[in-house]
Amino acid sequence: MEEKYTRLWLNYAKREDAGNGRFFKNVYVTGFEKEETFSVLQSALGELTRGCSEMLGVLPIVHSGKQEDREETIKEGFAIKLDPALSEETYKVREEGGCLTLSAGCEAGVLYGMFHILRQIAMEKPLAGSCVTKSPDCPYRMLNHWDNMDGSIERGYSGESFFFVDNEIVVDERTRDYARLIASIGINAIVINNVNVKNAASLLITDTYFEKVAELSRVFAEYGIALYLSLNFASPMEIGGMNTVDPLEPSVIAWWEDKMAEIFAKIPNLGGFLVKADSEGRPGPFTYNRTQADGANMLADIVKKYDARIIWRAFVYNCQQDWRDTKTDRACAGYNSFKPVDGTFRDNVILQVKNGPMDFQIREGVSSLFGGMEKTNEMLEVQIAQEYTGQQIDLCYLMPMFREILDFKTYCRKENDTVADIISGRCFGNTNVGIAAVTNTGNDRNWTGNDLAAANLYGFGRLAFDLSLSAEEIAREWILLTYGNDPVVTDTILDMLMHSREIYEQYTSPLGVGWMVTPHYHYGPFVDGYEYSRWGCYHRADHLGIGIDRTKEGSDYVSQYHEPNTSLYNDINTCPEELLLFFHHVPYTHVLKSGKTLIQHIYDSHFEGYERALLLQQKWATLKDHLPAEVYHRVEERLIRQVANAREWRDQVNTYFLRKSGIPDEKGRTIY
Amino acid sequence: MEEKYTRLWLNYAKREDAGNGRFFKNVYVTGFEKEETFSVLQSALGELTRGCSEMLGVLPIVHSGKQEDREETIKEGFAIKLDPALSEETYKVREEGGCLTLSAGCEAGVLYGMFHILRQIAMEKPLAGSCVTKSPDCPYRMLNHWDNMDGSIERGYSGESFFFVDNEIVVDERTRDYARLIASIGINAIVINNVNVKNAASLLITDTYFEKVAELSRVFAEYGIALYLSLNFASPMEIGGMNTVDPLEPSVIAWWEDKMAEIFAKIPNLGGFLVKADSEGRPGPFTYNRTQADGANMLADIVKKYDARIIWRAFVYNCQQDWRDTKTDRACAGYNSFKPVDGTFRDNVILQVKNGPMDFQIREGVSSLFGGMEKTNEMLEVQIAQEYTGQQIDLCYLMPMFREILDFKTYCRKENDTVADIISGRCFGNTNVGIAAVTNTGNDRNWTGNDLAAANLYGFGRLAFDLSLSAEEIAREWILLTYGNDPVVTDTILDMLMHSREIYEQYTSPLGVGWMVTPHYHYGPFVDGYEYSRWGCYHRADHLGIGIDRTKEGSDYVSQYHEPNTSLYNDINTCPEELLLFFHHVPYTHVLKSGKTLIQHIYDSHFEGYERALLLQQKWATLKDHLPAEVYHRVEERLIRQVANAREWRDQVNTYFLRKSGIPDEKGRTIY
Repeated sequence: MEEKYTRLWLNYAKREDAGNGRFFKNVYVTGFEKEETFSVLQSALGELTRGCSEMLGVLPIVHSGKQEDREETIKEGFAIKLDPALSEETYKVREEGGCLTLSAGCEAGVLYGMFHILRQIAMEKPLAGSCVTKSPDCPYRMLNHWDNMDGSIERGYSGESFFFVDNEIVVDERTRDYARLIASIGINAIVINNVNVKNAASLLITDTYFEKVAELSRVFAEYGIALYLSLNFASPMEIGGMNTVDPLEPSVIAWWEDKMAEIFAKIPNLGGFLVKADSEGRPGPFTYNRTQADGANMLADIVKKYDARIIWRAFVYNCQQDWRDTKTDRACAGYNSFKPVDGTFRDNVILQVKNGPMDFQIREGVSSLFGGMEKTNEMLEVQIAQEYTGQQIDLCYLMPMFREILDFKTYCRKENDTVADIISGRCFGNTNVGIAAVTNTGNDRNWTGNDLAAANLYGFGRLAFDLSLSAEEIAREWILLTYGNDPVVTDTILDMLMHSREIYEQYTSPLGVGWMVTPHYHYGPFVDGYEYSRWGCYHRADHLGIGIDRTKEGSDYVSQYHEPNTSLYNDINTCPEELLLFFHHVPYTHVLKSGKTLIQHIYDSHFEGYERALLLQQKWATLKDHLPAEVYHRVEERLIRQVANAREWRDQVNTYFLRKSGIPDEKGRTIY
Repeated sequence: MEEKYTRLWLNYAKREDAGNGRFFKNVYVTGFEKEETFSVLQSALGELTRGCSEMLGVLPIVHSGKQEDREETIKEGFAIKLDPALSEETYKVREEGGCLTLSAGCEAGVLYGMFHILRQIAMEKPLAGSCVTKSPDCPYRMLNHWDNMDGSIERGYSGESFFFVDNEIVVDERTRDYARLIASIGINAIVINNVNVKNAASLLITDTYFEKVAELSRVFAEYGIALYLSLNFASPMEIGGMNTVDPLEPSVIAWWEDKMAEIFAKIPNLGGFLVKADSEGRPGPFTYNRTQADGANMLADIVKKYDARIIWRAFVYNCQQDWRDTKTDRACAGYNSFKPVDGTFRDNVILQVKNGPMDFQIREGVSSLFGGMEKTNEMLEVQIAQEYTGQQIDLCYLMPMFREILDFKTYCRKENDTVADIISGRCFGNTNVGIAAVTNTGNDRNWTGNDLAAANLYGFGRLAFDLSLSAEEIAREWILLTYGNDPVVTDTILDMLMHSREIYEQYTSPLGVGWMVTPHYHYGPFVDGYEYSRWGCYHRADHLGIGIDRTKEGSDYVSQYHEPNTSLYNDINTCPEELLLFFHHVPYTHVLKSGKTLIQHIYDSHFEGYERALLLQQKWATLKDHLPAEVYHRVEERLIRQVANAREWRDQVNTYFLRKSGIPDEKGRTIY
């Protein structure tokens, strides 16, 4: 019988044994007597049973009891132990003398260790000689779903929601499989509803939905995942019938006290709330002349007694900007709103900061809030839903970009100053930090629209757990797990994934200028699409040059960074060229390090990007006999659309700049 | 009690008598004994009663009987007579010795004559000495509603439909008042549903709606108005379950035979059908490699026995054009599709041709199908719904534009060759000709969104009836009827209306280039909005110049005209400057007759257009104490929006061209 949806990287097809099967005939579990429930442990054991039987043809027999009863008897087998010396979520996998041991600080550690072991099996790597201890680098590893309760998904490119159908919450087999999938990559927190809370979603914190939300939270809890909800800051008005939501107003505070007591009584597992306030039309503290901290702290104080957190989005800017106003720079807005209140947030507030100061472009500077906010818990927000990066039609493997962001040195201190250091807590020593991704799944049969886009979901989770992994390591793992061990498949897809971001960047917007997309939809080119709009995202191209002056002579965004970054970006000669137009307004005749003029670079990169998109298509064609027909054809269809899109980008961008600059292509290629 | 909607130009407020009251104490009706019904006559008498009592305080007593019984007895009074010597719809109004006589060829003529008399009363003009005989110039004077059955109106800017609510047909007091309003300006045909026939509208020709459509048709018939329906050419598939709609396929023809028999049995008053085929995604004969004539004639042959007509829209072009393709010109498409089949259409087919070859822009050349089609019945289609001309927010009185179109000499023959000659039948001697407007009404309290936009509805009807009227005469009539006889009001509004089109043109797209609007919505500027799209409407601006080359060296659209128009348009030196960029690609440095360069003209006209929009607002402000507060404030609110729109147009267009050309404004004004 055909399955309703694919298994992604948990496909558990038959594998080479690689000497692994022998460990799993007998499994000995010890030390968990005192745990109140064993539901996560049960999930881990269930996964082991499924994985071993399907991949290795071995059905494990599980023995449990006190540790002291067992210790000496184990000669060959798999021992699972609670080790109080290990911190929560940490696992240790060791093999000695035929005995494979998984030790963990708590149930969740067992689950992550189990998935580590299953990955080795799936990749046909011998477990013999294993000696690994691993703690997750980010305390919070979160997915943000932008699912609406009518079933639609804001910026969703892979079907409808599998959480919500017609304003009802669905809990079924797919929910559980989804929990398995994301637990397997180390996700421990999930927001199920859109940050833009509207319509029925406002009622998620009422009796209408409590029962179902609680049921959902239990499914996730069994996989070590805490459920969070996006919260409408205006709830006291929208569902409470009040006429203010001023966070310092006692009646508002009292309303929230009651509401939270009700919520946590009904959904005790709830991890907390994600709040988008004062952003793109959402109400917030600014409406009442309060600070962002006033808003966040009010909620944080109330939920503290339930051991919950308030995740507060930093995406605050004026979306009613006048395009004529060249002084105002949207890039400056986040820092300007939050820097003044750095140090005033409660400890259970986490500021969720997008990777760049604009909005998930294919290339932008790293947000100055990283390094800028030195006394505030921060969570990095990335977007694996490819809103501006091809919408899961065009191939764009994002781990190389995420790697760059994580490795960015903020110079906020002498050492341990990268974004990775900040969000792991290494920099400032805080524990309420982490990373979140706006996720890319939907109810499509293959979960992510483009089969290859699943590498971004897999990659995000793996990177969140282990911030030291390289984009290539992750890609290789994902391919092996998903498609098995065929070197032709592995090498070809690896090559495609690893170049895909560069290719997408080449045929879209050049050198960090960003945007140039079809308004609202954000797919396909429209060079002037946002140029005369209220959204604050301009390229400022005229007949002489292009780019946004964010230097000290311009909007001075550069000064939001620590030195030497400020000076580096401020000087056109030292500014990294991939960000040249993000920081500078540059003449078309400016000569780049390559010896090319800017305008020639624009032409060349667009012609080359298109050619390389075509090459992607050709490379995929070589896999026709190596992959299931279903997979092959789904990706083939996407690549056809990508090539058409790349052609459109090439021609519109080149034509626009030829018409505007009047400078012909040196190579005389066709520009319209 | 406040009325639910305004009375527009039939306001019937108290007027100066001007010696008119004395005629209407006694009304003598003779000669109508043989008419089968007197419903139209009844409507005329009802209107007289209402008008005289409200405007003059006179309640007419109607005496009817044989002519010979009455003739000598009438000393003073109003005589209404059937005069078989007059053609249908013609009226004659004469006053001699205290007796006012209205003679007409049939009931409809009485109705039109009655409204003529009521207009004189409302304008306080003495009827004494009247001596006028008037036949309508256009046999068909039609309104096209683009109302959808869910209540929305495609390109509607004044609320929802008053015909359809939630897929039900509404017939109520407003329906009858609407019939009165449009009959009063001479409309004799109406299409109630959108030319894009979809969803429930496909069922208008089924049992589901027959009863209500028939009821509606009777209401209109009482005012001399024939009801038409937009027809879905794909009906045999959509509601008939067939798998083809090939117009030469016998089973398709048989299906239509049966369907039409059913329709006309149920709705005997029906005038016929309007069909949009092979246009913007609508199915049509081209799908089956048939000509447009094959499609139209098939239907026309079937409905001939019911004395009905097929109105076939000529708006056929490729809306999947590649913007890179500079050879293809949408302007050429209509002529290319229809010219080869000129002379092959049945006599009860009327080709409905938009005034220009593009789409209702503020300025474009007159369609080459006028004069081009010498053996086909034609109906001119104009749009008083201001899709591209301000959407009933911005003031744009369209009669000056319509006047130009009507007066356009096609040179298709030595004399009587204007568009007015063609659509009145004077040119080719045909009677199935006329004029249609995509109308501008909705269920807004004031019917047309902007109160002043009602001048376009009024004007269209009056012009359709009398093609010789000037834009100014019509405007003056409308103001007097609507707002009464206050010279300050009349002079101010007349001035505003008469300059409004020029002002709108000045601040929007220059010299006939058109478009530059926000895609899909068509309100507000977006210079490149359609430049890289599939819709065939481009401006082709680069750093040196702008405009579409439609000369013999370009798309050769000019050759679709008769000489000397072809040569006139082909030569940049003789081409009328207001159409310069419609026919030529012109350098920014080209010197216009004014002595200004093209680029300077663009800047100047945009600055001036904005200033003049501001002036409109100031002029309106002077009327504050002269008009009802409700009217004053509604229009004021629109003018505020118009000024904001004009500012946006000025700044975006000027900025775009300064950035692109690099040529500064001579006067050094602010361009961003």
